[in-house]
Order: sequence, then C-alpha cells, then structure tokens
Amino acid sequence: MNAKTPRVAADLDAYFTREDRRIRSELDDFLRIPSVSARSEHNGDMRRCAEWLAARMRDAGLSATIHPTAGHPIVVGEWRGAGPKAPTVLVYGHYDVQPVEPLDLWTSPPFEPTVRDGKLYARGSVDDKGQLYIHVKAVEAILKTRGKLPINLVMLAEGEEEVGSDNLASFVEKNSALLAADSVVISDSSMFAPGQPSILSSLRGIAYFQLDVVGPSVDLHSGSYGGAVVNPAMALARILSTFHDAKGHIAIKGFYDKVRVWDKKSRAAIKKLPFSDKHFRAETGASALGGEAGWSTLERIWMRPTCEVNGQLSGYTGEGAKTVLPSKAMAKVSFRLVPDQEPAQIEKLFRAHVKRVAPKGVTVKLQHIHGGHPWRAELSGPLYDAAKQALAAAFGKAPVVVGEGGSIPVVGDFTRILKAPVLLMGFGLPGENAHAPNEWISVENFTKGLRAVATLYEQLG
Amino acid sequence: MNAKTPRVAADLDAYFTREDRRIRSELDDFLRIPSVSARSEHNGDMRRCAEWLAARMRDAGLSATIHPTAGHPIVVGEWRGAGPKAPTVLVYGHYDVQPVEPLDLWTSPPFEPTVRDGKLYARGSVDDKGQLYIHVKAVEAILKTRGKLPINLVMLAEGEEEVGSDNLASFVEKNSALLAADSVVISDSSMFAPGQPSILSSLRGIAYFQLDVVGPSVDLHSGSYGGAVVNPAMALARILSTFHDAKGHIAIKGFYDKVRVWDKKSRAAIKKLPFSDKHFRAETGASALGGEAGWSTLERIWMRPTCEVNGQLSGYTGEGAKTVLPSKAMAKVSFRLVPDQEPAQIEKLFRAHVKRVAPKGVTVKLQHIHGGHPWRAELSGPLYDAAKQALAAAFGKAPVVVGEGGSIPVVGDFTRILKAPVLLMGFGLPGENAHAPNEWISVENFTKGLRAVATLYEQLG
Repeated sequence: MNAKTPRVAADLDAYFTREDRRIRSELDDFLRIPSVSARSEHNGDMRRCAEWLAARMRDAGLSATIHPTAGHPIVVGEWRGAGPKAPTVLVYGHYDVQPVEPLDLWTSPPFEPTVRDGKLYARGSVDDKGQLYIHVKAVEAILKTRGKLPINLVMLAEGEEEVGSDNLASFVEKNSALLAADSVVISDSSMFAPGQPSILSSLRGIAYFQLDVVGPSVDLHSGSYGGAVVNPAMALARILSTFHDAKGHIAIKGFYDKVRVWDKKSRAAIKKLPFSDKHFRAETGASALGGEAGWSTLERIWMRPTCEVNGQLSGYTGEGAKTVLPSKAMAKVSFRLVPDQEPAQIEKLFRAHVKRVAPKGVTVKLQHIHGGHPWRAELSGPLYDAAKQALAAAFGKAPVVVGEGGSIPVVGDFTRILKAPVLLMGFGLPGENAHAPNEWISVENFTKGLRAVATLYEQLG
Repeated sequence: MNAKTPRVAADLDAYFTREDRRIRSELDDFLRIPSVSARSEHNGDMRRCAEWLAARMRDAGLSATIHPTAGHPIVVGEWRGAGPKAPTVLVYGHYDVQPVEPLDLWTSPPFEPTVRDGKLYARGSVDDKGQLYIHVKAVEAILKTRGKLPINLVMLAEGEEEVGSDNLASFVEKNSALLAADSVVISDSSMFAPGQPSILSSLRGIAYFQLDVVGPSVDLHSGSYGGAVVNPAMALARILSTFHDAKGHIAIKGFYDKVRVWDKKSRAAIKKLPFSDKHFRAETGASALGGEAGWSTLERIWMRPTCEVNGQLSGYTGEGAKTVLPSKAMAKVSFRLVPDQEPAQIEKLFRAHVKRVAPKGVTVKLQHIHGGHPWRAELSGPLYDAAKQALAAAFGKAPVVVGEGGSIPVVGDFTRILKAPVLLMGFGLPGENAHAPNEWISVENFTKGLRAVATLYEQLG
C-alpha cells in the first residue's frame, strides 16, 4: 500500500472492535430465523424475520417500517438527517434464504450458526442476511459514534429475492419518491478470492421454468403396460437432451440472437485475473469442467448464457426397486441470460422449442416461475470511486472488477425505475455454498465488510 | 355352455357361499398388514404378516412353518394326506406388496380395505395377497367339507417378490425335496377381460438398475457455477435419451441378439383376441399410445423387450424455484426381457452402453438391483387340461391363452429347479392398478376364483 491509501476512520474501527461480540451475537439471532421464502410453512417465520430486522434497524438509529406485499413483507429503514443537499444512498438486501434440503449434508444445522475455521456456517450467512446486516451495523457505528451520517440513507430489505422478487418492482415503482436515490449499493455477491476485494461489473439474468410431462393418469405397472404406453420420465429425458448440442451450445432456435458481443478488452481483463481451472475444479469436487466450446471457465460463467436442470422428479425414488411406469415427470429448468436477452423473449423461444420436440403420447406443460434481466455496470463516476477507496481502506488492497454468473433481478429494476447507478460490492467468497448445504461467510470478511461499508458511506458524503 | 361343461361341486360351492362373509373379513385383516418388502421400516410388519398367514394356513388344515431367510421369511404350508401315489401340487404366492407412494392419490387408505362398485381396494388386494388367499381358502373348503384333498399340496408364500425374490431360488434349491411337485400353480396374474378366464403363456423377465450420476461434491449455485460445471441432471437426461432410437427400438448394442423369433401362429392368435387400442388407451389415461415400430400394442407388451425409467430424482423438487446446480442425479431403469434374453447378459450390454455414452465431468455408477428370467409355457398336458376345466366351471366360459408383460422371476426358477410344469392362472383384471395407487381386485373374481381353484385341485386328483 502506498501513502495515498485511505484508512478506516479510527473511531469507527474502534467501535466495531468494541462491539464485535454483540454484533456477531445479533447476527446469529438473525440467522436462527428460518426465513425460507419458497416454502409456505415458513410464512410465519418470514413475518417474524421482517419484524426482527425492523427492530434492529431502529436500534441502529433508522426509522423503520414494514410494508405488506402480495407475498412476503418489505422492510424499509430511513435516515434523512443529512439534509436535502446531501446525496441519498439506497441500500438493498434481502432477508429471505434458500431452502435447506438436503438436510443430511449439513455438518451443523442450517439455522444454528456455528463457526469452524474462521467460517460462520448457517443458511443465509452470506446470501444475504450476513451481508445485509453489515449495512445495518455500519449505519449504527456512524450514528452511535458521531450522531449523524454524511448522507441520507434508505435501506430496503425484501423477503422474496430467492423466489424471484415478484412484488419488488411494483413496490419500487409505487414508492419511487420514498426510494429516490443518487446511488444504489448492494452487498449480495462475492469477492474474487480471499483478501481480494471486488466490484461487480455484470450479472446474468434468469428465466426459470417448471416443465411437467404427463402420460397415463396413474402410475402403471411397468410390466403390464411398459412398451405400449409412452413413459413420461423417458419423454422428459428426451426433451431435456435437445436443449444443448454436442458442443455445449444451447440448441434453441434464436436463443443467441440478442446476445451482445463482448469487446476484446473485457475478455483480456478476465484473462489477467489470477484464476486456475484446476483449483476451481477441485473446489467444486467435479471430475472435470465442461461447458460451451470456445469460452474459458470465467467467460462461461460471466459472459455466456446457460441452460440448467435445477431439479427432476418422477416415479419411484425410494430404496430398492418399484416397477412403475410413472404417470408424470417434472423438471425445473432455468436459463441464465446475458445482455441483451430478455426473460419474456426466452420464454417465447423456449415454449416453441418444447412444443416442437415434445413426443406424442404425453402432454407437456411449461410454467414460467420467474424471470430477471441481465445487467452491465457503469464502471466510472463518484460511486465507483468511493467504492474503490472504501474497499482498499478496509482490505488493504485495491479491488478488482469481476463478473458474476448469478442473478440479482432487482438491479435491473433499480436502474430502470430509479435511474440511479448501482454498485455491487459483496463480501462472499468462492466456495461459500450460497445455495447449497453448509453455506458460510468468512468471519474476517464480515468484520472487514463492516469497515468497508462504513467507509463507503463516509466517502459518499 | 354345452352339456360337457364341468361344474363346481355343490358342496364346495355351498361352503364358499356360507362362509363368504368370514372369508372376506379375514382377507381384509390380511390386507391391513402393511407388508411393504422394499422398506426396512416395515420389517416388523413383514414378520407379523408371515405369522398371520401361517396361522390361517393351519386354520385351513395345513401344517405350516416359517422359514427365516437373509431377507423376509418364507411361509410353507403342507398337506400330505393323499399318499405317495397321488400327485403333488406346489402352490406359489407372495405376501409382500409394493410401496404405496404417492399416498395422496389413494381414494381410500391403502391398508384400509374398502369395497366400491364391486371392487375391493387395498394395496395387495390383487398383487398378490388376495390371489394367494384364494388358494388358502380353496384348500380349507375341501378339507372342511370332505376331510381330505385328492392331491398332496405344498403352499409356498414368499415375502420378497416385489423386491426381486433374492432368497427364493436358493431356498427352493436347498429344499427341493420338501418342494418336489408334479405341477406348480400360481395365481398372480390377470384375466384378459371381465368374465374372460385366462391362462398365461408367457412372462417377461426383468433386469432392474439404479443409475447414479455424480458431478460436484455439493449442490452448487446455478448462477455462480452454471455453464462451467457439468450438470449431472442434464447429463443423466442425455444418457437416458440414448436408450431408444427414433423408432422406439432399444439402441443398446447387442440388445436384441438373443430374442427368440415369434412364430406366425402366436402372433395370429393375439390378433384374434378382442382388444381395442382405443379402450386400452382410454383406460391408461394417456393421450396416445406409443412404443416400438412394427408391433401391435399386445405384442409390444407380451412379446417385445422394453426399457423404462421407473423413477428419477435430482436437485430441488419442491414448491417454486431453487437455483441449484445439483450434485447428483438418479434414475431407476429397468428392462423387461423376453426369451432367450438373460438378465446377466443384459447387465453386461447395458454397462458397456452407459460407459460409452457417459459424458465427461460426471461419474456414473450403475447398480444392478434385481433380475429375473423370461418364461414361455408348455400349453399341453394334464395340468393345462385341468385348468381349462376348472376355469370353465367357475366362470361359465372357456379360458383364452394370453401373454403377460410383467415378470414373476420365480417361474423360471421353479421350471429349472423342480422340473415341473407351471400353470399361471390369475384373477386380476385390466386396470387393477397393481403397482399404483388404488389397487383393487374384483369381488366377483375373488369369489369365482375360490371355486376355480378348488375345482382345479379336484381335477388334478
């Protein structure tokens, strides 16, 4: 680090050190609430989680309100004390989490936060409760230490990110005055490597479907009927097998028509990042990497659209054997999209493809579960400069610019509705198991994240 | 019916009429025991069921013993009072049943026998507890009415038919003196149509596998990894899609090499049976029939081998969406075999095929769960003649000869080990849901079955 490197303010650093035990104990309480948005049996937990979060926002010095939606509630915290001339920052996060199955693969229970080897394990630890809580506590540190923020701040926490944020865009549209901001800050992503702070330059969009193939009206005896009745599980497999060609390209007519061509500079920058296919493969546990021909691993994840099967269910799946010809077969299928693909356009192309390849003797139903637009950042201006300073101050190292294969559909919505630049500055790490058993956040990243975010708020003032 | 038609003996007919209520109430008790052999949590029920059955055999006048095996026990009943010069008949049946899932599709609970519209609904009602119990009560009727049978009789009931009869062949081999018989009678099949008694001419064999495709060591976020890590669910679909060609032929090298050519006479006899594709399709609820090109529906089921997916599981299968790249994907895959295909030979060909088509980046494991040989009947001799007489007497109509697409692997074992002809004479009906929710047996077939079996025993004496 050279002499110009900014530092974390001493009073804020001391506050985080002094309050560390309490802050992390509160985070544990947050993580103990099983706020699984996809499962209706957790609706009560979702409400409880929203109320818990609003209370902690108030403890931090924000005013906080809970807004009901057609789905799970949205929590909004506000501090407007910097006056009308100061800039306003909108912070976005989500308090809902992914389902936890398969439960037997968790080393410690998903809703009992446990630290092992400097990692805090719990569902939601990194995606996104832990990262959202960094913002709550960064606000608290400044307000408790100095009595005021240099910016006006609105904090928006939704409970439907993991199920498609169905009610968020309309909420933002209806409340655009409340949410109006000069910049939007989101911490729901990962750093490129341990110790290497990162700013995100792109997100993939998503179009998520459920494909149901129905054959006979009940499960049939595979001996008495097999051979003469079309098997929906086999039909599903044949349909799924048409989605890619032998080179890993998606074989749906028109699928790539809207894909924006990437410039050589972006591809060259990716090549410079310290990345090893070998380490990446080892981290996943897969026996080999794969994917679309002609693109590197990082390009496949950041720059190229994909089609994945996320789940499959048909017939008998228990112990041993059952000689059944299943009545139906189901697959969850999702596409990751890149600029300028649109979920609605992909849905149209996908419907046409499925219709074309569906075999006779089964009925195929396609349901669009949710969609989100891809996004590319503006990598210049005061928001970007402040982020570079804040990350360097907290981590002692300049950030790199990276892509992200995941989707945060609301980013596109914020850009479109609020016309404000969005900064994606996250504190996860590769291998964090965000949607898998044994999700974790690095304790070091959490504590440095507190300092980075508090410094960012300072820099934006 | 002409004057030569045999009749059910008046004393036996009267016995069945008089005892009808008790017999059916006992059958209900039998069906209430959840003897699901595939699920280890039912091991206690399996033992209880074997004991209950042995007790009823004793009530009927047989001596009965329970033989432990490495799996579920075998029950053997005996009556040797006809002396060494009288023929010995071995009756085979099974007291285990298929799993009951999906439970929500049962109109009445699977282990609470319920009569609706002349059908007795319960798991095991037709496959095979109801049909096995016909034999127990037919013996009882003759012994209680006349004090003796005209034949020596051994009744063998196993508890592992639905999971591959793993311990039966070795039991039959070790106890070939106990089980030695001049003929073997099995009621575990269906009549061609209501009111149309039937004798089976063939059974298909089976080779049942579990295919496990493993990719990353844990479920991954489909955004952060999708596109660069091979998706096991997609890989499984691609593997499954190679099992058939576009005409419905099985595309595994060498698969048809051992298939015995069918004679024109057999195919012509099948054409004469009153069968309607339209009614068959409507019965299954499928939108269209399908299968191997060049063969009729009955030929596809009776004469041709098949490959079916019996179950599939991968990733997230719950409500809504979960953006996961699954760690693994599983399929249950079974082949129905025809003479002279052998399960071991098919396993070898299948392993070679899977190895050839398995994509890089995933590990494919193939497990052979169970196998059974196909079988063709000798349609002549005293056993066949007696069956024709008995069925005509009970049903007032001459039986037809039909094939069966299902597998009863022990039939091949009996033929091989005991060197005795096997008669398959069953009382199920099309649409009986043998391996599906809402399994039923026709009450009329049960009561006529009692009379047919008692008459068969008489005729064989």
